[in-house]
Amino acid sequence: MTGTLEDRDLPYNVFAKACPSRGTLEHVTGRWGALTLGALSEGSLRFNELRRRVDGVSEKMLSQTLHALERDGLVHREAQPTNPPRVDYELTPLGREVAARLLTLIHFVEGRMDDVLASRERYDTARGGL
Amino acid sequence: MTGTLEDRDLPYNVFAKACPSRGTLEHVTGRWGALTLGALSEGSLRFNELRRRVDGVSEKMLSQTLHALERDGLVHREAQPTNPPRVDYELTPLGREVAARLLTLIHFVEGRMDDVLASRERYDTARGGL
Repeated sequence: MTGTLEDRDLPYNVFAKACPSRGTLEHVTGRWGALTLGALSEGSLRFNELRRRVDGVSEKMLSQTLHALERDGLVHREAQPTNPPRVDYELTPLGREVAARLLTLIHFVEGRMDDVLASRERYDTARGGL
Repeated sequence: MTGTLEDRDLPYNVFAKACPSRGTLEHVTGRWGALTLGALSEGSLRFNELRRRVDGVSEKMLSQTLHALERDGLVHREAQPTNPPRVDYELTPLGREVAARLLTLIHFVEGRMDDVLASRERYDTARGGL
């Protein structure tokens, strides 16, 4: 059995259950985390703009997602002292680096969906036909 | 409001709730999907080897994860006609391309965890101190 990733000389390892990097990876790649980072990579957005952009997210889930990303240092929350108060969200420099890598993955998946859907059809036909 | 991703001339768009690419992105980036693809990027593995490598996954969750990845055409399942039967899992060519992009993201997150943990500490101190 190979173990190249396991044996790398790095202090953090997502394959280890207790490593905090696993939690951060989940904030970044979770359903709403990934879409939130992707949406903010286009520029800063207010809460309701973000909510429209991330189609299907509830107010509660978006709020939780933003808190986790802010706590991890990936998103910056800027409250303007206006009346009514206005809150903008934007990526931090670290958040931009994470989002760029995430978008590479997202665009690759979007670009290969024809292959994925053809595979699903073959899979379902093979199983349905038995 | 910007809309560059929304307006791209691509048939698939993860930002749209009903687009099938969103489901595939979730199979790829979900907690166990990401770790399973990462583990298999080192070479083919049997079910129990994979289960040890993906620390913390249950037999049921690993089985569900592998089925979803196999259906999407990212993982190939090879049953050997031996006694007892032996089943190997390996990435397909498409799965290797997806895993490479995912590992870029994973390694980047692992490499920046010191920054993430420092940010968490600042965040918790600011909130705890108020």
